[in-house]
Amino acid sequence: MIDYRSDNTGRAAPEILDAMVRANSGTALGYGADEWTASLQERFSDLFETKVRVFPVATGTAANALALAASSPSWGLVYCSEAAHINTSEANAAGFFGGGLKLVPVGGNHGRIDPDAFARTLASVMSGQLHRGQPAAVNLTQASDLGTVYPLDDIRAIADAAKRRGLKIHMDGARFANALARLRCSPAEISWRAGVDILSFGATKNGGALCDAIVVFAPELADGLAVQLRRAGQVWSKMRFASAQLMAYVENELWLRLAAASNAAAARIAAGLAGLPGLRLVAPVEVNELFLELPASAMDALERDGFQFYRRSATLARFVCRFDTSEAEADALTAALRRHCTAQMGPGSARAAE
Amino acid sequence: MIDYRSDNTGRAAPEILDAMVRANSGTALGYGADEWTASLQERFSDLFETKVRVFPVATGTAANALALAASSPSWGLVYCSEAAHINTSEANAAGFFGGGLKLVPVGGNHGRIDPDAFARTLASVMSGQLHRGQPAAVNLTQASDLGTVYPLDDIRAIADAAKRRGLKIHMDGARFANALARLRCSPAEISWRAGVDILSFGATKNGGALCDAIVVFAPELADGLAVQLRRAGQVWSKMRFASAQLMAYVENELWLRLAAASNAAAARIAAGLAGLPGLRLVAPVEVNELFLELPASAMDALERDGFQFYRRSATLARFVCRFDTSEAEADALTAALRRHCTAQMGPGSARAAE
Amino acid sequence: MIDYRSDNTGRAAPEILDAMVRANSGTALGYGADEWTASLQERFSDLFETKVRVFPVATGTAANALALAASSPSWGLVYCSEAAHINTSEANAAGFFGGGLKLVPVGGNHGRIDPDAFARTLASVMSGQLHRGQPAAVNLTQASDLGTVYPLDDIRAIADAAKRRGLKIHMDGARFANALARLRCSPAEISWRAGVDILSFGATKNGGALCDAIVVFAPELADGLAVQLRRAGQVWSKMRFASAQLMAYVENELWLRLAAASNAAAARIAAGLAGLPGLRLVAPVEVNELFLELPASAMDALERDGFQFYRRSATLARFVCRFDTSEAEADALTAALRRHCTAQMGPGSARAAE
Amino acid sequence: MIDYRSDNTGRAAPEILDAMVRANSGTALGYGADEWTASLQERFSDLFETKVRVFPVATGTAANALALAASSPSWGLVYCSEAAHINTSEANAAGFFGGGLKLVPVGGNHGRIDPDAFARTLASVMSGQLHRGQPAAVNLTQASDLGTVYPLDDIRAIADAAKRRGLKIHMDGARFANALARLRCSPAEISWRAGVDILSFGATKNGGALCDAIVVFAPELADGLAVQLRRAGQVWSKMRFASAQLMAYVENELWLRLAAASNAAAARIAAGLAGLPGLRLVAPVEVNELFLELPASAMDALERDGFQFYRRSATLARFVCRFDTSEAEADALTAALRRHCTAQMGPGSARAAE
Repeated sequence: MIDYRSDNTGRAAPEILDAMVRANSGTALGYGADEWTASLQERFSDLFETKVRVFPVATGTAANALALAASSPSWGLVYCSEAAHINTSEANAAGFFGGGLKLVPVGGNHGRIDPDAFARTLASVMSGQLHRGQPAAVNLTQASDLGTVYPLDDIRAIADAAKRRGLKIHMDGARFANALARLRCSPAEISWRAGVDILSFGATKNGGALCDAIVVFAPELADGLAVQLRRAGQVWSKMRFASAQLMAYVENELWLRLAAASNAAAARIAAGLAGLPGLRLVAPVEVNELFLELPASAMDALERDGFQFYRRSATLARFVCRFDTSEAEADALTAALRRHCTAQMGPGSARAAE
Repeated sequence: MIDYRSDNTGRAAPEILDAMVRANSGTALGYGADEWTASLQERFSDLFETKVRVFPVATGTAANALALAASSPSWGLVYCSEAAHINTSEANAAGFFGGGLKLVPVGGNHGRIDPDAFARTLASVMSGQLHRGQPAAVNLTQASDLGTVYPLDDIRAIADAAKRRGLKIHMDGARFANALARLRCSPAEISWRAGVDILSFGATKNGGALCDAIVVFAPELADGLAVQLRRAGQVWSKMRFASAQLMAYVENELWLRLAAASNAAAARIAAGLAGLPGLRLVAPVEVNELFLELPASAMDALERDGFQFYRRSATLARFVCRFDTSEAEADALTAALRRHCTAQMGPGSARAAE
Repeated sequence: MIDYRSDNTGRAAPEILDAMVRANSGTALGYGADEWTASLQERFSDLFETKVRVFPVATGTAANALALAASSPSWGLVYCSEAAHINTSEANAAGFFGGGLKLVPVGGNHGRIDPDAFARTLASVMSGQLHRGQPAAVNLTQASDLGTVYPLDDIRAIADAAKRRGLKIHMDGARFANALARLRCSPAEISWRAGVDILSFGATKNGGALCDAIVVFAPELADGLAVQLRRAGQVWSKMRFASAQLMAYVENELWLRLAAASNAAAARIAAGLAGLPGLRLVAPVEVNELFLELPASAMDALERDGFQFYRRSATLARFVCRFDTSEAEADALTAALRRHCTAQMGPGSARAAE
Repeated sequence: MIDYRSDNTGRAAPEILDAMVRANSGTALGYGADEWTASLQERFSDLFETKVRVFPVATGTAANALALAASSPSWGLVYCSEAAHINTSEANAAGFFGGGLKLVPVGGNHGRIDPDAFARTLASVMSGQLHRGQPAAVNLTQASDLGTVYPLDDIRAIADAAKRRGLKIHMDGARFANALARLRCSPAEISWRAGVDILSFGATKNGGALCDAIVVFAPELADGLAVQLRRAGQVWSKMRFASAQLMAYVENELWLRLAAASNAAAARIAAGLAGLPGLRLVAPVEVNELFLELPASAMDALERDGFQFYRRSATLARFVCRFDTSEAEADALTAALRRHCTAQMGPGSARAAE
């Protein structure tokens, strides 16, 4: 079996579990008052080239929902892509933690918000229209849920429009490292320097084990968030074991190496599919995910070959690469796709596909 | 320094981190659809001698608040001890996750609810008194926040009174293993056989690392809870690493051995203080905690000696033993207490204390 | 000035205020334990030909949000039309009172849910997909927010599909009387007999003053709702003044006469516009509202003439008739629209429009 | 029957219903954008000698809960008297609208918070103690739920201590007029000049019909509150009928005359009971309520005589006077109490009571 189901089906990077084991000596104050968590604040402030507050949390859903709850009053509107994880896959956690805040999808392609569509949406909301709720925040998924990234200019354009209306900018960085690796820019550039106020900093999908984090750039959001986290049951008493994971994750650029590896595997597969008839990439492959339209019979054949992946619909399949997806596994998928898709086209098509 | 601050300042049992490392091979479906989590269901069903549903969660606060939210409508009243952790130390997480449910303290001694006081409280609430909210659940801390345990008969009496009015019974078992070790009965006896519907199953304070669990005995509570947990950001995508910890925790009775060790350390200290003037145990030492009234100057002296502990007030100190608190550390505390408290009494008193 | 802005800009029917004055004698128990509220239960049970529970509330927003909160767990999905009042105009009150429930728009024309689209939507949701939340209820606006009504068959089809999946059916009847007057059927037929579990019973838009009501057909929803209403600050201590309004509203078919009058005014206007070039009805005129596409310059001209109405966009205007909109006022609007719209078309078009 | 059950069992002052009838002409914009509501802002600003925002609401529960929700983050602690209405009688509406905020009772006598006890409570909370929640607001009931009033100095002392810690001060003025009439000071003096930020302005218990109000002194609280009210279903579309009631309520000092009348009736009864053996006032009679300890047999006898009142316990009865409680009714109660209580004492006691 070759597993392309998700980046969360994979192993943790051994360095991360090693760090937990190393942290297991002596006693340490609970609830984040330990040395590991103090070091984490410094390490991430270096990493982001500005003073940040970092809060380890158990999951990306917790990171997103609590970051948004900190960014919006309970009657706020939070703009997001139709395909955004907070809108499709988190059981309305943002609405729950946000005390009834409402998600409002905005148009755009490949899982992203279009800056112009966002500006038009904001312009259509009069201030004081109590019956609609009030614009409060915008959520950007970087990388997006369709495996694309926001170019820097788009982040800036959306953030500028948002800030002119007093909105906060939240970035869902469940695949932040993958986006960084793709864009080859610094963590600061695609976050606070582009206008981001608060970041869900994902580790789990990229070799982490049991924690992600919230990174706060806008200092006024941090103190309230700290109480909310405590109340949300997201503050481990033995926090050192979470902070140690996150320290190991960024140590020696581990996170960027892991992300570069999964991105490269996806790119290798995409390259191998170029020009292949019978399938279609529904979004450019910019990080570690491929969304392919292909015949149901080809999906059946892939499964018979031992490939695991998710069927999003009768004709849409998602393949996700992990940091430990090997070149051989990538090539095996490419070969199988070529085999099954060209088979669909008949002998003539097969030749045409060469 | 000798640390008596809390059982959550301590190390994890090495077996638990080892289990995480062992779980780090191959791929596994996310969000609890993995083999480790499936085994966990079976293992805990064996342990409790009935079919249970087990949900790993990040913290005891999450376990308590979400268990209560599953047990009460949002307008419910949840009875608890004045000293209960949910009432004093969880930032009203139960009120938050419960959509506005209200905690109602009930009298009792040493951190426990008194069964008769509870019965009287229930009797004073008329059904249909909308303006007060409606009784919905009762919370028992086993062991209690003052280091005592509920005898079996008290659990049964409270649960019986509660069930006659349709209330659910929640047990906060942050120190469940310590209570078990004390009472020398089976997990089933002090939980569902005594009437408990849902249990916060603590591991962190007793050698765990990053997870506790909710154990559901009343099957009608489980499906709603499952969605709530997802929405609460308490469902890890790499759940295997949590389930593996919990499996290791109960493997070969590890949990009971750890709890017996911390209980024994506390008992050793308590025995060493018997008859000592100048201090007073405010509650019997039944598990791994000692609550001592002693002069502020004695506390100062203890700190100078390198002992770490919490001052609950000017004259009340809490000392908590961990599974790795050694006999030498216990004896050092006893000796220091004898030294400083008898010193308080003057030479004459010192002699009297011999 | 002739006011077509809304049916809530209008007067109350004098009978309704008279009833309040008549109720102002003697003392009466508070919070609904009075004779007027008891009579209201009986009167509405007669009206709906089944035993119902009726809860007066201050506003339609309260009626909708609390009815939905009673119909859905906090993690539920509530299906509605994109144009539904709960989705566009109530500041996400349903999400707030529902503890984070999520509204999910379903396609359809003229402000309604299409039964087939609804069935497809339900079919696409797997049970147990925790990350999306769980289908819980469907909201039907009768009449719809675009001034159309659901035919009986559509209500039944949607309710049948909903009930097969265990969903509750909520009807937003802010203009329930207008729909009844249009469909010429009994209150029972378009509510519980067609599958409706709980009804927001509007009075304010149809000659009421300060209250609407929730009518509960599904008895299991009523007791919880009663506590929620108390907690929501929707239970007047001097409830008799609200119940008296609602009694007067349905006495001698007042409500149906009022609704018939406003429907007739709208129909008269619509008839006068038939065949007029330069404007377009965006939805059939089935109750008391007209949605017209017409040139901005025509809107300007209407305003100069003293007509008041809402501009929904640069080319879309809404005109709402009230129970006291006179034939002369209706004809004045028709004449003005003919004048200004044909003026737009030039002399030749003007003749063509005759 | 003579009704002493509550001040909300009574009639409305006819002036208030008359004002509704007078407001029933012409059309007016909905949701508070009408002339009556605009005048209300001015009238109340005059009344309070400062610019205020006034929001009519349906009930006192709504006023209290939404005022507190505006004054506290969702993790806040709100201090109140043990006997406060928000703590005993509103089904935890404050906890619900406040998103999980927690009420914390503070000691004091006769239904009031003691300023020193409050200062000590605040002093015991360290800033940054996340596990407890954070102090956010204090609630003062003026008049209190035991029929007493806060002297000006106490309000100032509590408000000063609160403001030093950044807390907001909320006054529950369900019987604000009664307190004013008692203290013979201006509305400004016992509200914002003494430090109150936001006031639940009661009318219903003092001759009102279907509305109370929130009066906002601290301008930063108003805009958020406006959205919350809309979302809470507390903004009537035909708001003019509520605003007209409130205007009539304060016109020509009607409210103060009504309150003076009910206060006088209670004072007359209290005076008549002076020195009577066999009963005891559990709190001074400072407004329109009497709380009497008397034998159960005396309560039985009173009921046989046709008096209606609430039994708070086997030996505690509450009697509430209304604006239209006549001197004859007051004297009838006094006489009956003298009769039944001295009867309890035997012939000798009866003489002693003369």
